[in-house]
Amino acid sequence: MKGALLYGQSGGPSPVINASAYGVLKQANEEELITKVYAMRHGISGAIEDDLISLESFINQLELLKNTPASAFGSVRHKMSHYEEDESEYIKIFSVFRKYNIRYFVYNGGNDSMDTCQKISAYAMHIGYDMKVFGVPKTVDNDLPNTDHTPGFGSAAKFIANTVAQIKLDSTVYPRGKVTIVEIMGRHAGWLTASADLASEINLGPDLVYLPEMVFDEEIFLNQVQEIYNKKHQCLIAVSEGIKDKDHNFIGSLHKMVDAFGHSQLGGVGLYLGDVIEEKLGIKYRSIELSTIQRSAAYVRSKTDVEEAVEVGRKAVAFMISGLSDKMVVIKRKSNLPYQVEYDTIDLIKVANMEKMIPESMYDAKTCKMKEEFFAYARPLISGEDTQIYKDGLLEFFSIK
Amino acid sequence: MKGALLYGQSGGPSPVINASAYGVLKQANEEELITKVYAMRHGISGAIEDDLISLESFINQLELLKNTPASAFGSVRHKMSHYEEDESEYIKIFSVFRKYNIRYFVYNGGNDSMDTCQKISAYAMHIGYDMKVFGVPKTVDNDLPNTDHTPGFGSAAKFIANTVAQIKLDSTVYPRGKVTIVEIMGRHAGWLTASADLASEINLGPDLVYLPEMVFDEEIFLNQVQEIYNKKHQCLIAVSEGIKDKDHNFIGSLHKMVDAFGHSQLGGVGLYLGDVIEEKLGIKYRSIELSTIQRSAAYVRSKTDVEEAVEVGRKAVAFMISGLSDKMVVIKRKSNLPYQVEYDTIDLIKVANMEKMIPESMYDAKTCKMKEEFFAYARPLISGEDTQIYKDGLLEFFSIK
Repeated sequence: MKGALLYGQSGGPSPVINASAYGVLKQANEEELITKVYAMRHGISGAIEDDLISLESFINQLELLKNTPASAFGSVRHKMSHYEEDESEYIKIFSVFRKYNIRYFVYNGGNDSMDTCQKISAYAMHIGYDMKVFGVPKTVDNDLPNTDHTPGFGSAAKFIANTVAQIKLDSTVYPRGKVTIVEIMGRHAGWLTASADLASEINLGPDLVYLPEMVFDEEIFLNQVQEIYNKKHQCLIAVSEGIKDKDHNFIGSLHKMVDAFGHSQLGGVGLYLGDVIEEKLGIKYRSIELSTIQRSAAYVRSKTDVEEAVEVGRKAVAFMISGLSDKMVVIKRKSNLPYQVEYDTIDLIKVANMEKMIPESMYDAKTCKMKEEFFAYARPLISGEDTQIYKDGLLEFFSIK
Repeated sequence: MKGALLYGQSGGPSPVINASAYGVLKQANEEELITKVYAMRHGISGAIEDDLISLESFINQLELLKNTPASAFGSVRHKMSHYEEDESEYIKIFSVFRKYNIRYFVYNGGNDSMDTCQKISAYAMHIGYDMKVFGVPKTVDNDLPNTDHTPGFGSAAKFIANTVAQIKLDSTVYPRGKVTIVEIMGRHAGWLTASADLASEINLGPDLVYLPEMVFDEEIFLNQVQEIYNKKHQCLIAVSEGIKDKDHNFIGSLHKMVDAFGHSQLGGVGLYLGDVIEEKLGIKYRSIELSTIQRSAAYVRSKTDVEEAVEVGRKAVAFMISGLSDKMVVIKRKSNLPYQVEYDTIDLIKVANMEKMIPESMYDAKTCKMKEEFFAYARPLISGEDTQIYKDGLLEFFSIK
């Protein structure tokens, strides 16, 4: 049916979520059935509060949108109640939908966002409001199930691999170095931490990689560090913020530090491991947290990733026009050499709130390094360079007033 | 006179010190008076320990050298005694010089390295060993005196400005944000921290900038943060690791935390300020330390900086061939619009161990922002893009076996 399309972003920023926005908005603008195109501000809360922006107001900036990291329309972390428990937000949202005649709804995010998307879809069906609903996958964590990978992962992985390589160049200039610990995002799934090992392809990888999927044993860890340090006089460690011991306790949360005000504070896993190394092995360390830059730096986006991010956006619209609804776009890998993918769909209910972990077969728990199976999987995802636009030495970004 | 040239790197890595290496080695290779070209490993300790590498062994990688961050030949932090106090190292060094007939000595580094360079020069004169000695400036800190700026600063400044811009994009996606504190290198000179403010040119700059040159007052600071947070519901702070109170105490060193083993640890200034904000203002914070990436990431090197880094290297050799010695190459700015520089020399003694601070006229102590005088100074230094070489998604780097 004819009607307007509403697009929203949710969850953590990514280097390419705005490339997906570009794909959705551009495709929507080309479809005859879509009469008007809007983006909501701050995800679903923009729909609740009637805070929409029309495509016309920023259409001259569309190409810049594709090149801008983070979430251009703002994001939100808001867990919606099920409508059977509390209908009030749904009533607000659907009155906004009626006001703008929204008949196509696209939500772009990770597993939590797909939960929101699925609930909107369920409510529309429940009240008989005729609207197509589609999810567009996004997460640097790469933890969405039923898709080969997730847009955002390739660019974040590429940033992490190249950054770890440069940290290694920097940390090995002195004949006797330290232990350098690089703490990487991913509380449950270790895809980003594993990506640090891609730097091994240019001989600048970490010596040891610790994923949240595996049991972390402090004694074994100390032996591994000591062994490498004895040999190389330095040691580079890539560690996930989410590593856990055999009782599933986060290692980072064991590290209670006391701050300047006497308050107990979480110091983070990198600092904790460093303290353990200094205390037990007597070796100095430097702990580096890649922080938010790893998820939203545009410096080294993967061309493959950017193109796929655009494509999942376009496909979501095309699938809706073809009559599908209540689904998310997924990427299927058809072949690895040459790398080829196709786009398909999956029911929203099958991705909402689910997480995809690294299979054991990709990780060598003995050497604490990734196996060829992981490299073969990840290589194509970081390939190809995406050119950024600079003016007077500064990146040019999309911005809405 | 005819003889060999020896080149060494010292002090902290930089994004372009290897571009200066490229300039020195390339120029040396073209000069008829220079019979052979060597690089020492790990700076002056390579000369002490007879650990030299000849240019022939890596000449096919020269272009890659120009593109590689950090210090390709290794670095060292070694304070040499004056020869009158202890001659032993000088005796070793000069026996190596005689062995290889070193008649041209180039040392590439910051103020400490120029101290070494000057001491080598003084000893050569003292014993009547005929050798030209030249310093090539390098430091991301931009704190060498008597030169308009220092190679390395432009690229580090460009990385910091663009990274802070992207941190701002990331940290402002939610309607109510946190206070985000970005801790930047520079214990005494605030040039790198000031560079964060260049992001203001694209409206993504920090709200507040704190330099080590100015007195830091916690009460005023808290008022400033509160005022901005009230207005914007978030606040981005760029702070130098080296800010000090009115009694010259490092603020970071006031922050004694107790680690998991009960040891007192330095938490860093970002964490300290965050704790103060959380305790006194009740606002949540995120502290981001740009860490070593800021000084040795090749992602966004400034073309101006790379070209000048090559040129100071070339000029050092050319100046020696023309008969000069005991000096360092300096950059003089001839005009700002258009940006033009010329290369000159200064006596090593005038730069060894000295530091150049940010003049008060560049900083508005009331608003805690940089003034136009700083922007006019820094703008040309970050301009122009330098293309990096990627293969299969990973940077290609120079490496010696």
